[in-house]
Amino acid sequence: MSEQSKNKPTQNSQWGGRFSEATDAFVQEFTASVDFDQIMADQDINGSIAHATMLAHVGVLTAAEKDTIIDGLEAIREEIHNGEFEWSVALEDVHMNIEARLTQRIGITGKKLHTGRSRNDQVATDIRLYLRDAVDHILSEIKRLQSGLIDLAEREADTIMPGFTHLQTAQPVTFGHHMLAWNEMLFRDYERLQDCRKRINRMPLGSAALAGTTYPIDRAMTAQLLGFDGICENSLDGVSDRDFAIEFCAASSLIMTHLSRFSEELVLWASAQFNFVDLPDRFCTGSSIMPQKKNPDVPELVRGKTGRVTGHLISLLTLMKSQCLAYNKDNQEDKEPLFDTVQTISNCLRAYADMMPAIEVKKDNMRDAARRGFSTATDLADYLVKKGVPFRDSHEIVGKAVAYGVAQVKDLSEMSLQELRQFSDMISEDVFDVLTLEGSVNARNHLGGTAPSQVRAAAGRARTKLQS
Amino acid sequence: MSEQSKNKPTQNSQWGGRFSEATDAFVQEFTASVDFDQIMADQDINGSIAHATMLAHVGVLTAAEKDTIIDGLEAIREEIHNGEFEWSVALEDVHMNIEARLTQRIGITGKKLHTGRSRNDQVATDIRLYLRDAVDHILSEIKRLQSGLIDLAEREADTIMPGFTHLQTAQPVTFGHHMLAWNEMLFRDYERLQDCRKRINRMPLGSAALAGTTYPIDRAMTAQLLGFDGICENSLDGVSDRDFAIEFCAASSLIMTHLSRFSEELVLWASAQFNFVDLPDRFCTGSSIMPQKKNPDVPELVRGKTGRVTGHLISLLTLMKSQCLAYNKDNQEDKEPLFDTVQTISNCLRAYADMMPAIEVKKDNMRDAARRGFSTATDLADYLVKKGVPFRDSHEIVGKAVAYGVAQVKDLSEMSLQELRQFSDMISEDVFDVLTLEGSVNARNHLGGTAPSQVRAAAGRARTKLQS
Amino acid sequence: MSEQSKNKPTQNSQWGGRFSEATDAFVQEFTASVDFDQIMADQDINGSIAHATMLAHVGVLTAAEKDTIIDGLEAIREEIHNGEFEWSVALEDVHMNIEARLTQRIGITGKKLHTGRSRNDQVATDIRLYLRDAVDHILSEIKRLQSGLIDLAEREADTIMPGFTHLQTAQPVTFGHHMLAWNEMLFRDYERLQDCRKRINRMPLGSAALAGTTYPIDRAMTAQLLGFDGICENSLDGVSDRDFAIEFCAASSLIMTHLSRFSEELVLWASAQFNFVDLPDRFCTGSSIMPQKKNPDVPELVRGKTGRVTGHLISLLTLMKSQCLAYNKDNQEDKEPLFDTVQTISNCLRAYADMMPAIEVKKDNMRDAARRGFSTATDLADYLVKKGVPFRDSHEIVGKAVAYGVAQVKDLSEMSLQELRQFSDMISEDVFDVLTLEGSVNARNHLGGTAPSQVRAAAGRARTKLQS
Amino acid sequence: MSEQSKNKPTQNSQWGGRFSEATDAFVQEFTASVDFDQIMADQDINGSIAHATMLAHVGVLTAAEKDTIIDGLEAIREEIHNGEFEWSVALEDVHMNIEARLTQRIGITGKKLHTGRSRNDQVATDIRLYLRDAVDHILSEIKRLQSGLIDLAEREADTIMPGFTHLQTAQPVTFGHHMLAWNEMLFRDYERLQDCRKRINRMPLGSAALAGTTYPIDRAMTAQLLGFDGICENSLDGVSDRDFAIEFCAASSLIMTHLSRFSEELVLWASAQFNFVDLPDRFCTGSSIMPQKKNPDVPELVRGKTGRVTGHLISLLTLMKSQCLAYNKDNQEDKEPLFDTVQTISNCLRAYADMMPAIEVKKDNMRDAARRGFSTATDLADYLVKKGVPFRDSHEIVGKAVAYGVAQVKDLSEMSLQELRQFSDMISEDVFDVLTLEGSVNARNHLGGTAPSQVRAAAGRARTKLQS
Repeated sequence: MSEQSKNKPTQNSQWGGRFSEATDAFVQEFTASVDFDQIMADQDINGSIAHATMLAHVGVLTAAEKDTIIDGLEAIREEIHNGEFEWSVALEDVHMNIEARLTQRIGITGKKLHTGRSRNDQVATDIRLYLRDAVDHILSEIKRLQSGLIDLAEREADTIMPGFTHLQTAQPVTFGHHMLAWNEMLFRDYERLQDCRKRINRMPLGSAALAGTTYPIDRAMTAQLLGFDGICENSLDGVSDRDFAIEFCAASSLIMTHLSRFSEELVLWASAQFNFVDLPDRFCTGSSIMPQKKNPDVPELVRGKTGRVTGHLISLLTLMKSQCLAYNKDNQEDKEPLFDTVQTISNCLRAYADMMPAIEVKKDNMRDAARRGFSTATDLADYLVKKGVPFRDSHEIVGKAVAYGVAQVKDLSEMSLQELRQFSDMISEDVFDVLTLEGSVNARNHLGGTAPSQVRAAAGRARTKLQS
Repeated sequence: MSEQSKNKPTQNSQWGGRFSEATDAFVQEFTASVDFDQIMADQDINGSIAHATMLAHVGVLTAAEKDTIIDGLEAIREEIHNGEFEWSVALEDVHMNIEARLTQRIGITGKKLHTGRSRNDQVATDIRLYLRDAVDHILSEIKRLQSGLIDLAEREADTIMPGFTHLQTAQPVTFGHHMLAWNEMLFRDYERLQDCRKRINRMPLGSAALAGTTYPIDRAMTAQLLGFDGICENSLDGVSDRDFAIEFCAASSLIMTHLSRFSEELVLWASAQFNFVDLPDRFCTGSSIMPQKKNPDVPELVRGKTGRVTGHLISLLTLMKSQCLAYNKDNQEDKEPLFDTVQTISNCLRAYADMMPAIEVKKDNMRDAARRGFSTATDLADYLVKKGVPFRDSHEIVGKAVAYGVAQVKDLSEMSLQELRQFSDMISEDVFDVLTLEGSVNARNHLGGTAPSQVRAAAGRARTKLQS
Repeated sequence: MSEQSKNKPTQNSQWGGRFSEATDAFVQEFTASVDFDQIMADQDINGSIAHATMLAHVGVLTAAEKDTIIDGLEAIREEIHNGEFEWSVALEDVHMNIEARLTQRIGITGKKLHTGRSRNDQVATDIRLYLRDAVDHILSEIKRLQSGLIDLAEREADTIMPGFTHLQTAQPVTFGHHMLAWNEMLFRDYERLQDCRKRINRMPLGSAALAGTTYPIDRAMTAQLLGFDGICENSLDGVSDRDFAIEFCAASSLIMTHLSRFSEELVLWASAQFNFVDLPDRFCTGSSIMPQKKNPDVPELVRGKTGRVTGHLISLLTLMKSQCLAYNKDNQEDKEPLFDTVQTISNCLRAYADMMPAIEVKKDNMRDAARRGFSTATDLADYLVKKGVPFRDSHEIVGKAVAYGVAQVKDLSEMSLQELRQFSDMISEDVFDVLTLEGSVNARNHLGGTAPSQVRAAAGRARTKLQS
Repeated sequence: MSEQSKNKPTQNSQWGGRFSEATDAFVQEFTASVDFDQIMADQDINGSIAHATMLAHVGVLTAAEKDTIIDGLEAIREEIHNGEFEWSVALEDVHMNIEARLTQRIGITGKKLHTGRSRNDQVATDIRLYLRDAVDHILSEIKRLQSGLIDLAEREADTIMPGFTHLQTAQPVTFGHHMLAWNEMLFRDYERLQDCRKRINRMPLGSAALAGTTYPIDRAMTAQLLGFDGICENSLDGVSDRDFAIEFCAASSLIMTHLSRFSEELVLWASAQFNFVDLPDRFCTGSSIMPQKKNPDVPELVRGKTGRVTGHLISLLTLMKSQCLAYNKDNQEDKEPLFDTVQTISNCLRAYADMMPAIEVKKDNMRDAARRGFSTATDLADYLVKKGVPFRDSHEIVGKAVAYGVAQVKDLSEMSLQELRQFSDMISEDVFDVLTLEGSVNARNHLGGTAPSQVRAAAGRARTKLQS
């Protein structure tokens, strides 16, 4: 709430007819949205131009009126882009500000622009136009990040690291394989946003206040001018629907959840204890007190922003819960969470897309870690199964060998044949082939498996899919 | 936590090899999931049958082994359906319970079933199979509710009620139009679930523990046997992905948000003050203390269940935040929220689909309410615009007429021509045509508008869409 | 993200020693917090003054150094208040901006201020000071609103309205009684914030980066200078604890939940169908298209802001989930949700405290509504019980009488004695005393009941409690 | 929904008077709560006994009637404890089930128990009694966990480990100090629950349906019999307030957030990479496929349950948003989230209280890790400051030394004096005292600092506080 709350209240010229007193000054500011909805000025002007064009087409405006209106709107767009436009809280929102300025510039014709529409459908239209643009930008950032991950995956298709479950060493995998797991998450994010975009890109304009309008509007024409895929079929629904915003925030929450998982792993990997990767200095900051520190700020901050987007999702779901049709003032609260989600997602994806191609992969450390932790124990179990031991029995045999290894501080591959044969006499010399890291990863050679050849093939398929 | 926590702990036969002490009895129960995951028993058996069939196809099992396994599994399915199966907490989950029973029934061959797979991909597979079935059921319930709404819309295409914005009378609409607004919301819910289903119906099986398996599995075959649309492309992602559960809960939160809006309106409409509808006695309950009460329990309870589903969504988003790959025990917590969401959505849709066709619409009360509240003020404004008054000016003229009407307790249609002409001399006798309720709704005669003819056409289109 | 992302990156002078390249320009902005944390400038300066005073006291600074520092800080405070301070994104946050400016103004002595503290404990301290002030302001706004409600309750202690359960007329209550129900909710909010304040008002300063400092600091002295009630007992906890922010947001979510309930009722009551209250024009706005509209914007917008605060709560809970000790960059995300919660709660309470004393209560409409709907049915049941009929039987008798009344469109008080006696011959002439509205409310004459005398007494007690 | 939905619907005897048709069978089950609210049977019986006692005291029941009722209720309690009670969905909830059974057992007198109360205040009373007991149990479990942590802290007061910020080695701390940080979080949880308990322990009974009762009840007496601290002051608020449930879930969310932080650290510390602790086998499980695995299931599962409780909090906040007074059926949804939160918190605390005293601390590994990572860099900076170098300059000097160390793979303590003097000639032989781990921790010797002597003192204070 700015200091303008001390301003004298203003009688609202757009709807003041039946009112006996002016709006309270604090209330005027409290209920105004222009501070944040001016971000949709371009969309508002585009919507108005299309509306005016349609009104002229159906004969509600003359061609001359339409031209005057469009020229006026373009001039206002110029003013806004140049920072010369004076936004007024008394005029509540971006729509009224622009319309008032239009009338100021072109006179009485400006007042005709509002024929056959209402703020209720205007705001619903603008926000969809805004969000459609935002989604397109976000989709391109996802692709940029994916592209970097796929390159990295190919580059590191042979780099062996420990695969973890329960953060315990499980089996060796390749770093390229791990990067492609991240990439899969992003593919789903991309798909979800595309699906969401279909539902964003439907036009409510023409719903008027809630029931439609008495003017002979041509909604198909307006929709076509504005690039909408379809038209909201019901006027009450048109002005009250905010599903698209919620669906977008839900998809965004998943994006952030994925980025939080990437971040958690990068932070771990950048720790002295793991020491698997090094982040470039330009993506880190230091400490004001501890001179040795190099902190992985970018992944940490991205991880921290996860809650922000989930919070916005909850904010919108709470907002819409139990709302009667059609429009209620509550809905003004749809904008800030949405705008902040767009900005957060865009920034986080940008940071990741910039950072990932530049991380340094410490292959030797990864390999050393994989060598420890009995990571090829499953391979030994599978070896026994192939010699005819039922899986559950071989599992138990290897479990005992591992217990022995823990006590002796010896990995399986470090035991002698004799030591290994304590646990099963089915084990013979060829066991050492399956106990190597390369043997282990190469053996997982099927669609989705971690074998380097599979990783390369998968990276190739991913690149093709990305380009399509 | 049942009283079984006093039981003696049991050494786990599936993985106990390397362990030096048995699991703590309380921990055994605390970490077990069999109490709730047994709901997926059918899916688990189906998955195992497909896996065994594939293993035989690639030569890992003999045909005879496969048959023995399948027969054993079908017998176990029978036991479960008949309530004869003894679930054991010591065996942790549905998967181990069934596998242990299989070995008990068919001997050593039962142990071979687990070849080339892991619980991690097994649980991921089962839950997708379960959810796919659940989605199909929910889709059919949505359709059933929609069908009832569309019928109602057609039946009440001419029934006039006040349309509200800000819960203030805005303009007359028809009740049929209002029902179609609800129907639009459900169409989007249907679409979203269909989109979600694509991402549910991909098969993780073959990911094994996290890296794939050393056996020559044929994932395409298993996927085809189980009716999956596709295969998870990356094994690490396959075992760690829970996006589908979150996306489903997000879509479900929107369904509940819609039902909460329907409920809010029904509760309002059933109040003595609105008195627009009557709910059949069989969907209501009474009061233990107030003998006159007839409470709209079903819509209230549905509205109350909204938070439940949103809560589950948050539960899952919180669960997955910052999780390292691949599988962590945390993920066991994915099930209960998901199962409860499925049940809640199914029940709420069922209740609505049963109830809506039976509500009684009180046309006279709706009409009376629409007559009050200056609901045709916009029509008067439009009338003036058509006579050449700019919209913003006509708005102000009508505002003054309304202020006069408030003071005189007179609707616009109740004023004399002379009274109306106080505010503008453009008003003449023909004004009374536009001030009637029928005149008002009929005039909103465009795609999405509330005119009865449009409502009938929209209902027809909706029915066609529903059937396709 | 402002346009400054195109700026040349800057080597950070506070911690750049070990870094080989400057921070990426986009990253610099992405990770900077100065845009929003400058709101804590006063608290930061106060904290620094207390720290400097303590350092002088224990001999780490000379008295002259301390004075120079304090003078410098006060001059900077002046610059900030006058809008002359140049905030720099390159300096990351409010703390570094102020410290850098101090060194610029007073030279090398400025660098000594940071002795024995770290940004980690500085930020934790500033935010607690900020929140303590905010809580005190909010507490005073709650009191102001309560005071208005108590006045209203006394004024309307005799005003009868229908009490609702399930939004069905239940029993008559007084409007004063209803206002005191609201007031009770606010009393709990007040208590909860007071409890929360105890945990806010503990000082982390002295935790340094995470482990304490090697300087001989006197934490008790600093705490006393800053008005803290106590000291955080553990340095690791001191820098990582954000409980106070979460607890504050949880208490705020309850405040908003309460305001949403008030709002829902006001919006209903202001509808044409209820018509129980009128909101002053200055708290309402109109419609750009429907000239008759007067919309209850303030309650609607407040109701809409509920989700905003719940969203911030979720944001913070998600933020802290699974964070390792001690400080992580994630925690920078604690501020915006907190600041916005403070502003939202303050504004909403202000709007309500301004508005409530000015609402117009339409007594006649409330009374009419209470007369309808069989609101005294319970009284009839109680009457029968007092004549010796077991409660459950009398409930059934009255239920039948109500069914008859519904069919005949007759309230109980409108039936003849003969009609009533159809249902029980225990009913005699004195029944009409209990069937009046006054009879009904007066009879509920115990602590917490709706009898006007109880309402007056309760209002009196509430006022006393408020003033204590 | 059980199979009982196929049952024939039952006319409800408690309120069926005015109804013309029986409840739909599905609706009966859908709206029934007895499946989950029977958990409050004891509280319901206790509440009824107190109510009957009070009714006898004020003369509404005779002493004989009271005794008959109490005997009947105690017999029913016996039946329930013995598992002999037949719960009926047709009777909706625990309250009606018990009351119907009472009448069955003792005849017409049973019907008098409901005099002067309603289910609305009965359910509100029972749930508070239930929650009060639950809170007391949870408080004792918190204490048990704290006690184990304090013991551990004392035992490991000298054990040095790396302190982390940003998961980068920051400064050495002691493991005891770290345990006390956890303990501080639990102290706040304890306080918060105590504060919450005050607001739980107020009695709504006497609110009746919503407006109070016409019987001369003595609420103070009932409150005293039931051990309540106070009485809900307003009947409308009494039946509609669910703040206590929300506040409890908010406090529980913080408990889970803390446990999630402990869990994250334990999981990290138990990884091969950190290897700081070992969890006893009885708190871990293995893998069905990887024989070497020992997974930290308990901390992982606890971490996973965090979202569950946050989800319940959201569920309840969403539930109460915008609810009109007084009672609505929505509120039936308050129970399951609350019950599950109680069970989750109790189990998680129990698991931790059992586990923590049994973890094995690997001192040597911790010490080794602390030695690496330049953890005494701040000490070197402080050393220089004490020699007269301004802090910011010394910070830069040390930063350069660290950069050199990174390049040379040498910790500060491993450099020769000559090497160190490259960066500042203020460094002399005594520098090596401050570069040792013991030197570093001992130097942080103030209230809240990590010096072993401080840790011991803090543990002592904590134990005293715990016992008070």
